[in-house]
Amino acid sequence: MPLSSEHQAEIDDQRSHPTPTLRATAPGMEKHLYTAQPVLDHGFVRVIDYMGDDAAICQAARVSYGRGTKSVQNDEGLIRYLMRHWHSTPFEMCEVKLHVKLPVFVARQWIRHRTANVNEYSARYSILDREFYIPAPDDLAAQSVVNNQGRGAALTGEEAQRVLRYLQDDAMRCYDHYEEMISQDGQQGLARELARMNLPANIYTQWYWKVDLHNLFHFLRLRADAHAQYEIRVYADAICAMVKDWVPAAYGAFEDYRLGGATLSGRALECIKKMLAGEEVTQETSGMSKGEWREFQGVIG
Amino acid sequence: MPLSSEHQAEIDDQRSHPTPTLRATAPGMEKHLYTAQPVLDHGFVRVIDYMGDDAAICQAARVSYGRGTKSVQNDEGLIRYLMRHWHSTPFEMCEVKLHVKLPVFVARQWIRHRTANVNEYSARYSILDREFYIPAPDDLAAQSVVNNQGRGAALTGEEAQRVLRYLQDDAMRCYDHYEEMISQDGQQGLARELARMNLPANIYTQWYWKVDLHNLFHFLRLRADAHAQYEIRVYADAICAMVKDWVPAAYGAFEDYRLGGATLSGRALECIKKMLAGEEVTQETSGMSKGEWREFQGVIG
Amino acid sequence: MPLSSEHQAEIDDQRSHPTPTLRATAPGMEKHLYTAQPVLDHGFVRVIDYMGDDAAICQAARVSYGRGTKSVQNDEGLIRYLMRHWHSTPFEMCEVKLHVKLPVFVARQWIRHRTANVNEYSARYSILDREFYIPAPDDLAAQSVVNNQGRGAALTGEEAQRVLRYLQDDAMRCYDHYEEMISQDGQQGLARELARMNLPANIYTQWYWKVDLHNLFHFLRLRADAHAQYEIRVYADAICAMVKDWVPAAYGAFEDYRLGGATLSGRALECIKKMLAGEEVTQETSGMSKGEWREFQGVIG
Amino acid sequence: MPLSSEHQAEIDDQRSHPTPTLRATAPGMEKHLYTAQPVLDHGFVRVIDYMGDDAAICQAARVSYGRGTKSVQNDEGLIRYLMRHWHSTPFEMCEVKLHVKLPVFVARQWIRHRTANVNEYSARYSILDREFYIPAPDDLAAQSVVNNQGRGAALTGEEAQRVLRYLQDDAMRCYDHYEEMISQDGQQGLARELARMNLPANIYTQWYWKVDLHNLFHFLRLRADAHAQYEIRVYADAICAMVKDWVPAAYGAFEDYRLGGATLSGRALECIKKMLAGEEVTQETSGMSKGEWREFQGVIG
Repeated sequence: MPLSSEHQAEIDDQRSHPTPTLRATAPGMEKHLYTAQPVLDHGFVRVIDYMGDDAAICQAARVSYGRGTKSVQNDEGLIRYLMRHWHSTPFEMCEVKLHVKLPVFVARQWIRHRTANVNEYSARYSILDREFYIPAPDDLAAQSVVNNQGRGAALTGEEAQRVLRYLQDDAMRCYDHYEEMISQDGQQGLARELARMNLPANIYTQWYWKVDLHNLFHFLRLRADAHAQYEIRVYADAICAMVKDWVPAAYGAFEDYRLGGATLSGRALECIKKMLAGEEVTQETSGMSKGEWREFQGVIG
Repeated sequence: MPLSSEHQAEIDDQRSHPTPTLRATAPGMEKHLYTAQPVLDHGFVRVIDYMGDDAAICQAARVSYGRGTKSVQNDEGLIRYLMRHWHSTPFEMCEVKLHVKLPVFVARQWIRHRTANVNEYSARYSILDREFYIPAPDDLAAQSVVNNQGRGAALTGEEAQRVLRYLQDDAMRCYDHYEEMISQDGQQGLARELARMNLPANIYTQWYWKVDLHNLFHFLRLRADAHAQYEIRVYADAICAMVKDWVPAAYGAFEDYRLGGATLSGRALECIKKMLAGEEVTQETSGMSKGEWREFQGVIG
Repeated sequence: MPLSSEHQAEIDDQRSHPTPTLRATAPGMEKHLYTAQPVLDHGFVRVIDYMGDDAAICQAARVSYGRGTKSVQNDEGLIRYLMRHWHSTPFEMCEVKLHVKLPVFVARQWIRHRTANVNEYSARYSILDREFYIPAPDDLAAQSVVNNQGRGAALTGEEAQRVLRYLQDDAMRCYDHYEEMISQDGQQGLARELARMNLPANIYTQWYWKVDLHNLFHFLRLRADAHAQYEIRVYADAICAMVKDWVPAAYGAFEDYRLGGATLSGRALECIKKMLAGEEVTQETSGMSKGEWREFQGVIG
Repeated sequence: MPLSSEHQAEIDDQRSHPTPTLRATAPGMEKHLYTAQPVLDHGFVRVIDYMGDDAAICQAARVSYGRGTKSVQNDEGLIRYLMRHWHSTPFEMCEVKLHVKLPVFVARQWIRHRTANVNEYSARYSILDREFYIPAPDDLAAQSVVNNQGRGAALTGEEAQRVLRYLQDDAMRCYDHYEEMISQDGQQGLARELARMNLPANIYTQWYWKVDLHNLFHFLRLRADAHAQYEIRVYADAICAMVKDWVPAAYGAFEDYRLGGATLSGRALECIKKMLAGEEVTQETSGMSKGEWREFQGVIG
C-alpha cells in the first residue's frame, strides 16, 4: 500500500506532537498510533485512539469484586482468571478506534459484528478511488473439494492467468464506466448513489471502527481462525499484533484460552475420561457423528 | 419479480395449513404471511413470522405502569401517549421476521441498523443467481446540483441509454466471468469466496431479517424519509404497508409523531413563540445558520 | 405461589381461545402458554408468546448456506453442527416472551444480560405488593469458606432461626412504614418514587422479558450453572424445562455442547495429549496455576 | 460526601503523574480526571478515562462524507449539522468511563440504558458499606396529585419528621442485622449473597460505567429532563457539566437540539401553520387529546 505523500505527511505530523495526559497510557500502543500497517495490496489498519490498558481491566474487576480480588497475587493472574471464567465486563472497559481500508467483500463480513461503532466512507456522497483488491498469485485458491466454504491449493498456469485477467479487466472497465457515468462534462451526470452500483466487490472502502476489547477478542477469535476467509484473516492477524503490544497480559490469556483452546461437548469429555482410563473409544461408541468425531480427533491430536 | 413456480408452490403450501394457537394473532398480518410483495425489478419483502399486536404493546405497558394506566381510556390513547413520550420498551414487545431480496448496495445501507437479527445468503458457500437491479428509466436520476447526497431529475436521451447499456453489459460480463471462474468443467475452479469479488453491487442478495417494532420504527423513520435513497425507500414503503395492517394503532401514532412530525431546536421554538406573538423573525435574527433556517421554513411551511 | 383467583381466571380465559394462524407453531410450547410455573416462595415464570421452532432455525440457516446445507441429512444434525461451530444467527431467529415474578436482588443480576427487551413494573408509578422472598430453611446457606462468592451448608438451630426472624421482621416493618409513608389518609403522603427506597431487596417485582434463543442460551449457560446463585438458578432451571419442550433439538445440542461441555485452554489440551500418550503430568509441569489445575482435574474427572 | 483520606490520597497520586501521549487530548476534561464530583449525600461521579474530543467527531464524519464535508466552514457548524440530522455514528466515536457511587434505586433506573459497559461492586462477593441515601428536607416530596409518576411540594412538620425517622431507623436496623447475619464471630455466618437481601434500596452501590457520546446524550436527554426523578437528575446534571467541558461544540448542539428542543407531531405542525396564518385553533379543532393539547401549549408557550 503506497501511502500518498500527503497522507504520510499528515501521519508524521500527528506523530510529532505528544501532549501530557493524566489518563492511563499504554507505551506499546503509543508506538502504533496513526501508523498504517499494510494489509493486502492496498489496504491498511491503523490505530487512531485507545482507552485503557491491562491495569484498567484489573481496576474495573476490583470495583466488582472489592477486597476479594486482593487474593489473586498479580494482575496477570487476575486477568487469566477473568478470561477463564468468562467474565466479560472488565475487558469491555478497554476500547480501541481503528482506521481500516479494506475491500468491500471483506467489509461485508466484518460488519456482521454488530457491537461496534462504524463510520464508513460514503459512496453516496463521495467518489470512490480506483483501487481494487487483486489477489497475489499464491492466494488465487481453488474451491475446496471437501468443504463448501473453503479453499484448496492455488490455481496455476493458464487458469490462474485467465482469472487474474478477468478480475483486473472487469474492475478497470467497471470503474471506467463509473467515472464516465458520473462525469458532468458535457452531460448531467448520473447520481453517485446510483453509479456506485456498477462497482465490483473487490473495490476498496474505508472506515473508522471502534470496539471494546471483549468484543474485539470475539471478532479476533472468529476471524483470526484457520476457517476464516484468508482476506479477512490477514486483517485480524494485523490487529492481533497491535493488541499484543497494547494489553500483553490480556492478549496472553486470550491466546491460551481462546485462540489456542477448544470447547468440548459433554460427549467428548466422556470419551476423554474413558480414554484416560485406558478404554478404547471409536466413532461408533462415542455417540458422535462422523464429522464431530473427525473434529474431536483434530483437537486431541 | 417473477417468482419461480417452485417458490410459488412452496408459498401456496405454507398458506394452506392454518394451525390453532393460543398466542396473540393479528388478522391483518396473517393475510400477508409468506406472500412476496414485489419491490424494484427482482426484489421482494415477505413476512415469515410475527409476535404480538397492538394489545401486546398495551399489555406490556400495563405491567410497567400497573393500575396507573387504567386512566387512559383505551388502547389507542395509551399507544399514542407511549409514542409521544418516547416510551420505547412496550413497542419492543412486538417482533417481526421478514424475508427480503434486495440489491447488495441496498443491503449495505440496511445492515447499518445494528439492533436486528440477520441471516444472509452466503456467497462464500453458495452460488449467487444472475439477477441484477437495473433502474427503470424514470429512476435513472442525475446527481443533485444542490445536495451532494441527493438526486435531481431523470437522465434522458443518449446519456440515459448509455448508462443503461453500461449497467446491463457490465453486470452480464462480470457474471459470465464469475460463472467461468468457478466452473469445475475441465479446470479446478476458483473458490466461490474469491470469485464473488467480481460481482457488482447491483446484484441481488437475500436475507432473513428479524427486528422488534421499536427498532423497526426507527429504521422506517430514516428509510421511508424523503432524504433516503429511492432504492431503500421502496422497501421501507412496502414494510410500512405491512406494519399498518399488523398494528394499526401503533402505526397511526408512528405516522403522526414520527413520519409526519419534526424535531425543533430551542432556537426554532423561540422563533415560533416570537412569530405567534406577531414579531417578525428573519434568518439573521433567528440565530440559525442559512441551512438551518431553510429547513425551518420547510417545517413551518 | 398462590395465584389470586382473579389472575387464575384470566389465565384460564386466555387458554380457552385458540385462534387459527399460518405461523410456525410449537405444540410443546403451546401447552405452557400463560400457565404460571411456580419458582421460589412467591415467584413464577410464564410464557406469554413465542416465535419459531426447531424448523425455523434450519430454515434461516438454509437461507445462509443455500444448497450447501442439503448435505446435512436432517434438522437435528444441522442444529448440532450450527451449535458446535458457534453459528449464532440462526438461533436468533427464535424469540420468546416471558412474564417473570422475582425478588429484586435476582432481578438485579438478571438485568445485566443486556440483549433483551424488558418492561418492569414501575414502583415509581404504582404501589408494590407486600410479598418478600424468605428462603426455605434448606436454602439458608452459610458463607462458603473456600469461595468468596459461594455458599456452604445450611445454617441450623438458633442461628438459622435468628436469620429467618430478621428477614421476616425487617421486611414487614419496612413495608408497614412504606404503606404509612405513602398513605394520603390525613396527610399529604410521600411520593411513591421516594417511599420505595425503604423496601429491602427481597421484595418481589415482575416484568415482561423478551429475548432471542441465542441470547437465552447464553443466559441459561451462565445462570443454570452450578456457580450461579441458587435463587436465579431455579428460574433458569424452570426456563430450561420450557425451552426443552419448545425446541427439543436445539435444547439437546445446547445441553451437550454448552451445559455439559467445557472450554479447555491450549495448555490444558497439551496436557491431555501428553496424558493420552502415557506421560505423567502434574500441576508443576502443566504450566497451570493451582486454581486452574484444580478446575482442570474437575473437568477430566 | 466526605471522601476517605485514603481515597483522596489515591486521587491526588493519580492526578500528579501526567504522561505524554499522541492521542487526542481534551484539556477541559483533563481537569476533571479522577476528581470526585459530589452528588446527593454520599454519592459522586468521577471521570476515569475518555476518548476523543470535538475534533474526533468531525474527523469520523469526514471519513464518511469525504470531500463533501469541506463545504461546511468549521467544526462547530459540522457538529450542529450532524446533530440536527440525527447522524449518530460520529458521536459514537467519543467514549467516556465514569466511576459512580449511587443509591440502588437510582442504579436500577440507570441500568435500563443497555448500550453501555458496566462493572458494579458485587454484594455477592464483598460487604456493602453502611451508607444510605436520606433525602434532604427540601427533597422529601409529596406524591403529585396530577401525575402518578411525579412529586409535589416538600412534606413539612410532623409528617416530614416521621418519614425521615422511618428511613433512617429502618436503614440502620436492616444494616445492623445484615452485619449480624454475616458475622462469623461465634457462628457460621449467612452467605453474603443471601444477607444482602435485607438491605433497603437507598443503600449506596458503585460502578464503573463506560458509554459512547451518542448513547450518553440519549441518557442525558431522558435523565436531565424535568420529568426524570430528582435523584437521577442530579447525576445527569453533574455529567452534563463534565461533557460541556469535554466536547463544548457537541454539548452546545445537544443543548439546542435535544435538551432545549421538542418533537412536534404532524397534527401539532398543522396547528402551528394555521396559527401563524392567523387562524384560531382550539383543543377541539386541533385533533389532539386534552393531554396532548396541554403539552403542546407548554411547548409553544
